[in-house]
Amino acid sequence: MSDTYVLPAGRPPSDSFTEMTEMVLPQHTNVVGTAFGGVIMSWVDICAAISAQRHCGEVAVTARIDAMEFHAPIRLGDVVRLTARVNAAFGSSMEVGVRVEREDRRTQARTVCVESFLTFVNVVEGRPKAVPRLLLTTDEERVLDRDARTRREQRLSARAQSERNVAG
Amino acid sequence: MSDTYVLPAGRPPSDSFTEMTEMVLPQHTNVVGTAFGGVIMSWVDICAAISAQRHCGEVAVTARIDAMEFHAPIRLGDVVRLTARVNAAFGSSMEVGVRVEREDRRTQARTVCVESFLTFVNVVEGRPKAVPRLLLTTDEERVLDRDARTRREQRLSARAQSERNVAG
Amino acid sequence: MSDTYVLPAGRPPSDSFTEMTEMVLPQHTNVVGTAFGGVIMSWVDICAAISAQRHCGEVAVTARIDAMEFHAPIRLGDVVRLTARVNAAFGSSMEVGVRVEREDRRTQARTVCVESFLTFVNVVEGRPKAVPRLLLTTDEERVLDRDARTRREQRLSARAQSERNVAG
Amino acid sequence: MSDTYVLPAGRPPSDSFTEMTEMVLPQHTNVVGTAFGGVIMSWVDICAAISAQRHCGEVAVTARIDAMEFHAPIRLGDVVRLTARVNAAFGSSMEVGVRVEREDRRTQARTVCVESFLTFVNVVEGRPKAVPRLLLTTDEERVLDRDARTRREQRLSARAQSERNVAG
Amino acid sequence: MSDTYVLPAGRPPSDSFTEMTEMVLPQHTNVVGTAFGGVIMSWVDICAAISAQRHCGEVAVTARIDAMEFHAPIRLGDVVRLTARVNAAFGSSMEVGVRVEREDRRTQARTVCVESFLTFVNVVEGRPKAVPRLLLTTDEERVLDRDARTRREQRLSARAQSERNVAG
Amino acid sequence: MSDTYVLPAGRPPSDSFTEMTEMVLPQHTNVVGTAFGGVIMSWVDICAAISAQRHCGEVAVTARIDAMEFHAPIRLGDVVRLTARVNAAFGSSMEVGVRVEREDRRTQARTVCVESFLTFVNVVEGRPKAVPRLLLTTDEERVLDRDARTRREQRLSARAQSERNVAG
Repeated sequence: MSDTYVLPAGRPPSDSFTEMTEMVLPQHTNVVGTAFGGVIMSWVDICAAISAQRHCGEVAVTARIDAMEFHAPIRLGDVVRLTARVNAAFGSSMEVGVRVEREDRRTQARTVCVESFLTFVNVVEGRPKAVPRLLLTTDEERVLDRDARTRREQRLSARAQSERNVAG
Repeated sequence: MSDTYVLPAGRPPSDSFTEMTEMVLPQHTNVVGTAFGGVIMSWVDICAAISAQRHCGEVAVTARIDAMEFHAPIRLGDVVRLTARVNAAFGSSMEVGVRVEREDRRTQARTVCVESFLTFVNVVEGRPKAVPRLLLTTDEERVLDRDARTRREQRLSARAQSERNVAG
Repeated sequence: MSDTYVLPAGRPPSDSFTEMTEMVLPQHTNVVGTAFGGVIMSWVDICAAISAQRHCGEVAVTARIDAMEFHAPIRLGDVVRLTARVNAAFGSSMEVGVRVEREDRRTQARTVCVESFLTFVNVVEGRPKAVPRLLLTTDEERVLDRDARTRREQRLSARAQSERNVAG
Repeated sequence: MSDTYVLPAGRPPSDSFTEMTEMVLPQHTNVVGTAFGGVIMSWVDICAAISAQRHCGEVAVTARIDAMEFHAPIRLGDVVRLTARVNAAFGSSMEVGVRVEREDRRTQARTVCVESFLTFVNVVEGRPKAVPRLLLTTDEERVLDRDARTRREQRLSARAQSERNVAG
Repeated sequence: MSDTYVLPAGRPPSDSFTEMTEMVLPQHTNVVGTAFGGVIMSWVDICAAISAQRHCGEVAVTARIDAMEFHAPIRLGDVVRLTARVNAAFGSSMEVGVRVEREDRRTQARTVCVESFLTFVNVVEGRPKAVPRLLLTTDEERVLDRDARTRREQRLSARAQSERNVAG
Repeated sequence: MSDTYVLPAGRPPSDSFTEMTEMVLPQHTNVVGTAFGGVIMSWVDICAAISAQRHCGEVAVTARIDAMEFHAPIRLGDVVRLTARVNAAFGSSMEVGVRVEREDRRTQARTVCVESFLTFVNVVEGRPKAVPRLLLTTDEERVLDRDARTRREQRLSARAQSERNVAG
C-alpha cells in the first residue's frame, strides 16, 4: 500500500508533533547522580528526528543544532518529557523545535530544562529532496514559522560572516 | 517545596496518561531486521512504570504483566508509539493498560501491534503503600475501571485455583 | 557443511534446553536498586528465542508471551539463572517454557522469581515454516507437552471469544 | 595522598587537552548507516567534560552547548577523533572547545565534521566553586582566551535581551 | 537467613560451574558482521566472575586474564555458549577456566572459539579474604587443579623474572 | 578520491599511534563501584583495533590477546587513558601494544593499570591480506619491534609445543 502512496504537497504542523517520555536510570547518570548532558542531547536529537520524519515521510538527517542551555539539573529517577514539532520547512530542510521538561515525581509540576532548535535535511539516496510545505492555519503557527525564518536568516548571515573572515 | 506537598486522596486517570515515542535502531533488532520481542517488552514496562508513578507519586514496581500478543512485526526504522494510563487502583496496586503502535513512515498510518495490562505496586522503603483513588468522571473511564476489576478477579481466582492444585 | 545438512524430522526436548546466567549490574536497575521488570522480560525473550532456534534451526520470532508474575524482587548484584526448553511444537509454532531464578550470593539457594510460556514462530523469508516434531520419550516430557496443548486451546478459544465480542 | 593535595591556583591549557578516539559501530547508526547526531553530541559532551574536569580537578557539569553544525556525514566503520581543551576560565565556569574529525580508513586524511564550544560549571556538593585560573603563555592561547571572552559577552547580552523581551 | 549462614570451609568444583548463553546481535558486531573481540572478552569476564562468586560467596574482582586466542570467528546471529568453573583455589585467589563455543544454528554442532584462564581475588571491604578450599573428588578435578598450580608457578616466576629485569 | 588511493608499502609506527580517553560511568561498574574487567578489556580491544586499522587501512580482526594483569583498581568517576601503537608487522598480521592508565581527578597523576599485546589480522573479504611494512627510524622503535618478534616466536613455539602434547 505505501508503495502507491503519494506524499501530500503540504502538511499541518500538528502532523509532526512528537511526545517522548523517558525515565532517568543509573545508566544515564554521571558520578554525582545527574543525567549526563550528552544523554539529554541524544534524546533531543531522536525526538527531533522523529518529528522531522513525520513531516517529510523519509529518514531525516541532523544538519545543525542551535545552542542549548541547561536551566535546571535532571536527576536520577526523574521523568523527562520531550516535545517537538516542525516550525518551518525550507526546500529540503526543516527547523524542529524541542522542549525538555523534568517532572516532579510527586506533584507532577514540570520545569523546562532545555529548549533548542534543530535543522534536519531530508536525504534520499544521499541527495537532498524537497519536503512538503507546512500548512499554517493558526496565528501561533504563523509566529513560530516567522521566528524560524528569522533564525534561519541569522544562521545564514553568521555563516557568510565567518566565511568572509576565513577568506580575508 | 515537594517536602510539604500532600499527595491528593484521588486523581483522574488523565494524570497518569503517558505517551512515549521510540525509533527502532540497529541496536534494537535481531538478525532478520525486526525489533526483538524483549526490546518491545522493555519499552512497555518503562512506559507503564512512568504511568503508575504519575498516579502514585512514588517509584512503582512491576508485579505482573498479562499476556502480550504481537499482532504485527515492528521493523528497523519504524517509529513506535506507546501510550499508557492507569485503569484502576486497588489499595497499594494499580492496573496500567499499555498500547504499542507502529507508524508507517510515509502515511503515518498506525497499526496496533501489542496491548497489555500490567500490575504495579507502590513500594516505599520495601513496604506496599496505599495509592490515591482513581477519580472516574466519564463513562469510558468507568468501563475501563470495571473491566480492570473483572480481570483482577480472574487473576485472583486463577491463582487460588493453581494453589489448590499444588496443595492437592 | 551446513548447506547440505538436512534438518531432522523430529528432535528431543533436551536439544532445545537452554541455560543463561546473568549478573544484575547498575545498568539493569531502577532508582530503588532492583532490576527493572523490562530487563528481566528482555532476558526471558532472548533465552526463549535461543531455545526455539535450537529446536527449529532457524531464526524464530516472538508471537506471544503469556502472563508473567514477579514473585520475588531481583536486586543489584544478584546472579540470575534462566532456563528454557520447548514444551510442544504445533506446525510452524512452538511453546517455550522459561523459568527465572535468583541465587543467593552466599548460600547459592535459588528462588523462583518468574515463570512464563512464550510462543515462537519459525519464519523463513517472511513466511511461517513447519518445525521438527518434538520426540517425547519420558513421562515428564509427555505431561509438559499435554499441558502446553491445553494452554494452546485456551488461548485459541479466548481469542475466538474476544473476536466474537468485537464482532457482536 | 590526594587528600592533602592542594589544587594549583592556575593551570596551563595543555593540562586540559583531551583526545578521544571512537569507532562507529552498528549500535551508533541510524537506518541509513550514518552515525546519529545524538551519538556524536554525546561523545562531544563526554570529551568536553573530561577536559573541564582535568582543569578544575572536580566533576564539572554541562551548563550550555553552543550551536553545532554537521559539515560532513560520519559513517559506519569510520574512526572518529575528538579533541578538546579549556579555552578560558571565568570564576566557577569554563569554556571548552571541541573538534570532531572523521578519518578516512585508508589515507588517514581527516575531515572536520563538527566544532563546538561548551560551558561547564565546577559543582561541589551542589554549589559552584571557583576553578583555577588559566595560565596563558603562547599567543595562540591568548587568542583562544580572548575569543572565548567575546563569545561569553555575546551569550550574556543575548540572554539579557531575551529576558527583556519576556519581561516587556 | 543469609546473615547467620556460615560459609563452608570447602566446596566441590561443581558448585562453581556456570553456563551462560548469548545470541550475537547487531550491537555486538563490527563493520564486517563478526562479534567484536572486546564483546567476547566482556562475556568471558562476566561468566568467570559469576563462577568465582559462586565459589567464594562474595564479589570477586578480576586480577588477571591469561592469553586468549580466537580460533574461529563468531558471527551475527550465532548462539554463543560460555562455560566456566573454578580450577583451583589459592588463599584469597582462584583460577577460573572459561570456554567459549559458537553453535551452528541448524546442526547445533559446537566449535571451540576461545579458552582462557582468569584469576579472581575475593575482596571484602577493599581487602583480600581467604576463599573456601576446593574439594577435589574425581581424577579430572585433580588434573585441573594440578595444571592450575603449574600455571600459577609459571606466572609467579615470569613476574619475578620481569621484576629482576626492571631492577637490573 | 580514496578509490584511486594506493596504500603505501611502509608506514612509520607513529601513523598507528592511538589515544582514547574514557570516563568510568555507573554503567561500567560492578556492585562494589569498580570498573568491570570486561569493560576495560573491551576498551583495550577497540583502541587496538583502531591502531591496527590505522596501519593497514582495512578492518582488522582480533586474533589473540596476550595475558593482562590488573595492577590497580579503576573506580567510578576515574578518567581512563588508553594508548596503542603497532609494534611490529608480520605478513598479514600486526602486534599492537596497549597501555591503560587511570588518572587521579585532582592531581592528574597517572597510574598504569594494565598493559597488553594484541595480535590483529588484516582480513579482506574473508581472506588475510599483507599489511604495509613498519618503517623503523628510532632506536626505541627498533627495540619495540625486536621484542615483538621475540614474543611472536615464543607464541609460535608454545603453540607447537601444545600441539605436540595433544598429538602425543
